[in-house]
Amino acid sequence: MKRLDETARGVFTIAVTPFKPDGALDLHSIDQMVDYYAEKGATGLTILGIMGEAGKLSADESRSVIRRVVARSDLPVIVGVSAPGLAAIRSLADTALEIGAVGVMVAPPWTLRTDTQILGYYRDVSETLGDIPFVLQDFPLVTNVVISAETILKIVADCPNCVMLKHEDWPGLDKITTLRAASDAGARRISILCGNGGQFLPEELRRGADGAMTGFAYPEMMARVVAAHDAGDVDHAQEVFDAYLPVVRYESQPGLGLAVRKYILARRGAIAHDTVRKPGKPLSENTIRDLEFLVTRLEKRLATVHS
Amino acid sequence: MKRLDETARGVFTIAVTPFKPDGALDLHSIDQMVDYYAEKGATGLTILGIMGEAGKLSADESRSVIRRVVARSDLPVIVGVSAPGLAAIRSLADTALEIGAVGVMVAPPWTLRTDTQILGYYRDVSETLGDIPFVLQDFPLVTNVVISAETILKIVADCPNCVMLKHEDWPGLDKITTLRAASDAGARRISILCGNGGQFLPEELRRGADGAMTGFAYPEMMARVVAAHDAGDVDHAQEVFDAYLPVVRYESQPGLGLAVRKYILARRGAIAHDTVRKPGKPLSENTIRDLEFLVTRLEKRLATVHS
Amino acid sequence: MKRLDETARGVFTIAVTPFKPDGALDLHSIDQMVDYYAEKGATGLTILGIMGEAGKLSADESRSVIRRVVARSDLPVIVGVSAPGLAAIRSLADTALEIGAVGVMVAPPWTLRTDTQILGYYRDVSETLGDIPFVLQDFPLVTNVVISAETILKIVADCPNCVMLKHEDWPGLDKITTLRAASDAGARRISILCGNGGQFLPEELRRGADGAMTGFAYPEMMARVVAAHDAGDVDHAQEVFDAYLPVVRYESQPGLGLAVRKYILARRGAIAHDTVRKPGKPLSENTIRDLEFLVTRLEKRLATVHS
Amino acid sequence: MKRLDETARGVFTIAVTPFKPDGALDLHSIDQMVDYYAEKGATGLTILGIMGEAGKLSADESRSVIRRVVARSDLPVIVGVSAPGLAAIRSLADTALEIGAVGVMVAPPWTLRTDTQILGYYRDVSETLGDIPFVLQDFPLVTNVVISAETILKIVADCPNCVMLKHEDWPGLDKITTLRAASDAGARRISILCGNGGQFLPEELRRGADGAMTGFAYPEMMARVVAAHDAGDVDHAQEVFDAYLPVVRYESQPGLGLAVRKYILARRGAIAHDTVRKPGKPLSENTIRDLEFLVTRLEKRLATVHS
Repeated sequence: MKRLDETARGVFTIAVTPFKPDGALDLHSIDQMVDYYAEKGATGLTILGIMGEAGKLSADESRSVIRRVVARSDLPVIVGVSAPGLAAIRSLADTALEIGAVGVMVAPPWTLRTDTQILGYYRDVSETLGDIPFVLQDFPLVTNVVISAETILKIVADCPNCVMLKHEDWPGLDKITTLRAASDAGARRISILCGNGGQFLPEELRRGADGAMTGFAYPEMMARVVAAHDAGDVDHAQEVFDAYLPVVRYESQPGLGLAVRKYILARRGAIAHDTVRKPGKPLSENTIRDLEFLVTRLEKRLATVHS
Repeated sequence: MKRLDETARGVFTIAVTPFKPDGALDLHSIDQMVDYYAEKGATGLTILGIMGEAGKLSADESRSVIRRVVARSDLPVIVGVSAPGLAAIRSLADTALEIGAVGVMVAPPWTLRTDTQILGYYRDVSETLGDIPFVLQDFPLVTNVVISAETILKIVADCPNCVMLKHEDWPGLDKITTLRAASDAGARRISILCGNGGQFLPEELRRGADGAMTGFAYPEMMARVVAAHDAGDVDHAQEVFDAYLPVVRYESQPGLGLAVRKYILARRGAIAHDTVRKPGKPLSENTIRDLEFLVTRLEKRLATVHS
Repeated sequence: MKRLDETARGVFTIAVTPFKPDGALDLHSIDQMVDYYAEKGATGLTILGIMGEAGKLSADESRSVIRRVVARSDLPVIVGVSAPGLAAIRSLADTALEIGAVGVMVAPPWTLRTDTQILGYYRDVSETLGDIPFVLQDFPLVTNVVISAETILKIVADCPNCVMLKHEDWPGLDKITTLRAASDAGARRISILCGNGGQFLPEELRRGADGAMTGFAYPEMMARVVAAHDAGDVDHAQEVFDAYLPVVRYESQPGLGLAVRKYILARRGAIAHDTVRKPGKPLSENTIRDLEFLVTRLEKRLATVHS
Repeated sequence: MKRLDETARGVFTIAVTPFKPDGALDLHSIDQMVDYYAEKGATGLTILGIMGEAGKLSADESRSVIRRVVARSDLPVIVGVSAPGLAAIRSLADTALEIGAVGVMVAPPWTLRTDTQILGYYRDVSETLGDIPFVLQDFPLVTNVVISAETILKIVADCPNCVMLKHEDWPGLDKITTLRAASDAGARRISILCGNGGQFLPEELRRGADGAMTGFAYPEMMARVVAAHDAGDVDHAQEVFDAYLPVVRYESQPGLGLAVRKYILARRGAIAHDTVRKPGKPLSENTIRDLEFLVTRLEKRLATVHS
């Protein structure tokens, strides 16, 4: 498959990693899940990211996940390879590409502070990866690293293998506008796919994003919003979005969100179990009650949204 | 007016501080705004909090704001008195109570880390305030201080003048459940009013919160949701909430949210100008376009929500 | 007295704020302390900084401290005016200058992250202060704000009233070298005085610093090290420094250090009491034992250092 | 070799990981270095910690380092196994013990905040490790996790395989006193070895620590200080310490310290090259000049310290 490049668009779904109730990898569910994401409109998959519980897997397990996903999927696969050191990033990236991934994603280590430090880090990453294309993950709420638009532009200028931004700064809309103004004025235009659970997807598209890269449990929301936007029907894009928003909001709770997502995915049959690996916790009874209430309302409301 | 106590309920609106285009205090707008909040269903007001730009006022300005609000309002007024030291907290609190406020609110300094440090701080605050009732503000996203449910319960046990929790931890629903289970089991039951822009209000009420303390630019949303909840109509509570949610979400963007809020308040005539004091920035053109789109949709949608 | 400018050199002592055992301001001790600092070789005083417990004073108390120090001192006085908002900074600075201070010091608010944010903040400060000269305090360990050398140079370029850097980044020696290389190459050369309890004073001077701005309880150490350095006797500078280093190190413990400093100052008769205001804590018995051991050794060792 | 237990004492040296100038592992230097540490008085070795650049090694390299050190050393070896997830910790620990290590060390992930979160994390670690003994690393300056003495005592109570504290909180002396008071009063007494580059070693021993676990480039300093302390000669302990303190201080600069340490180790012949792996940087010329000045002074001064 062709390597990832700046033209990527649409919906790259952030895939969960399915586990059995005892915490073991559930490889069979990976097949189900890959099919589910494709049916719901994904144009790509991103695995082993923060929401893929990458940090909780052994090296062997990571390889198994990559192999199974790539074997099952007709879609391009990006692999998260964030690690404390460059040697580990390189070796994870090599493994991923050998198995068939089209690119990798790198979030910054939490200790980076100044623009100079951040730029220096991504220059090192870029050099380490060589010709492997990578996605820059900009997610300050979780990484603790605040990256200014100026710094992103410097990374894009200095690192030819940085082909995509996973945008999830918050607030981040004016940042997209700034980045697009820069590429309109001559900077290299990279792909911008937006995360943050999809909470600002209609606005992000209007600011110039190329789609979504997030794992909201109803990937068809992102696909429909992107399609409506591309068709120029911003009202319909917003109407679809609004229907899902109460659940989007609930799933976007930091930390808790992954268990919410897996609960819905399991409920919809995309994976067999909603297990989150330790130290993740199962949902409380009250949270499940909240979710059932919201999901039932969503189903009713969707009946009223024209398709 | 009776001092604040553990029985407070309903909607305490977080009031903005209105400025003129040149940055000067706009005292005339305070009158308008106080009337607006009351008409829209507020049962109390909280002034000079984080969203009241308290940190940007001189001591004289703060006094002017308190005086003007208290003079105009028939509702109980809580005053934010967070400050780097206990002496300043005491002197601000004395001023507030002398003018006619019913209680004060204290957020923790950003340097606190361990449970012991947090408990120690609030013990000092409690002793410093003496018989002045205070609200504990639990807002980790902004204060950088994470307070466990256990620690809140210790503060409640040790500090008799802590009568209310401004709950805005995120995620925070199970925390409310834990606190209410503790008061059901014999701990002193304090008032819990919820902030966070109202993003989880229906769920918070179902977990046992007593209402909202937030400044969403449409206070009638909180009033209607609380009323529907109190009447036992959770579906209607959610229906009202869902209508406003796209705007709630947009206003909840950290940092940017205050300017969004003031823009809508000015648009609705609650204040004369949407000025945010420096180093706050005015909204970008694109953000205003986003808002106009959302507000227009909200107005249409409200027409379909029965009242 | 002439306003502070880029030519300032020598030892600006960070003054403590003396309290009585009950926590009240001890104005009489201020006189003693001012005399003590002058006798021990200070060429200037900096008051109401972090180690001056500025945050714990009411506005009236702050004014009293400034008045008393300025009235007693023949040395130039800098006043710390860090505050959450620009209005408060302006009003504190006006007060300070009216009473007779020569300049003010501003540390950044803890929330600043990117270079752009930091530069933007100091531009606002600069504009707010107008013709009042200010010291930029660069102390990441305490402020949580990491300022790159590039950003300092931009602040110097954009803010003509920024006349001094209080340097206490850690590690920070190569930063001084970078700043001095820039001024050698044509950037405006501002004064660099070093803090951090004096822990790297000999090296800082060799890198191009103009002296010390710190409150180590033996100000004569800084004065002697600077004098030896200026006389070109780096070995003697280091010899003096080494003698005091065990105590410098002990006093440099974050948080605890202020109580250590006040204990020694009281022991030496510079202030009447070693009281630290709440929530500061008195020293433990074991800490006092450590200190007595170190101070006794220091006295013996000083006898062997030629003067 | 007997597994690590609560009776460990003396000097566990934090070993560096030697690299060749091109960044490749330098296995030959490992032999030299192990011999050097033993000759200089180490009673144990700790490898693959923060200062062992563990995060920069691939999994294969980590195994090579453990094998080479264990094969060469007659001393007990502890292996750092901190990782983002429990699965990785378990698999690293199994590998280490199989090769012949006597225990492992675990630092907390930077995201932990409340006492409950920290205790929960170490309970999970303890359960995951089963009968493998572990060292709790308490190093807030680097890990961002502040652990109160109360929380340490709860971990000790709940986790029988927690046999040692690597103490490097700062300030931390009263914490040792608190922990020792608790074990005197009946809590399980674990070993406390102190890090922080040795900056407070004499005081830490007087408070009840059992020795040092740090990698200061002159391990004989720690050995001599501990021996003098054990012999009851606190003055001599301090005299030895004071001689090395100017270098201890210089090596303790965060981030920079590792390159300083490697420079001195290479200078003393303990390793062949002072290479720090990327993104680590080589020392500046000025820093090398500082070091040469300090090392030369140290050598002269040691001649005057009786042995």
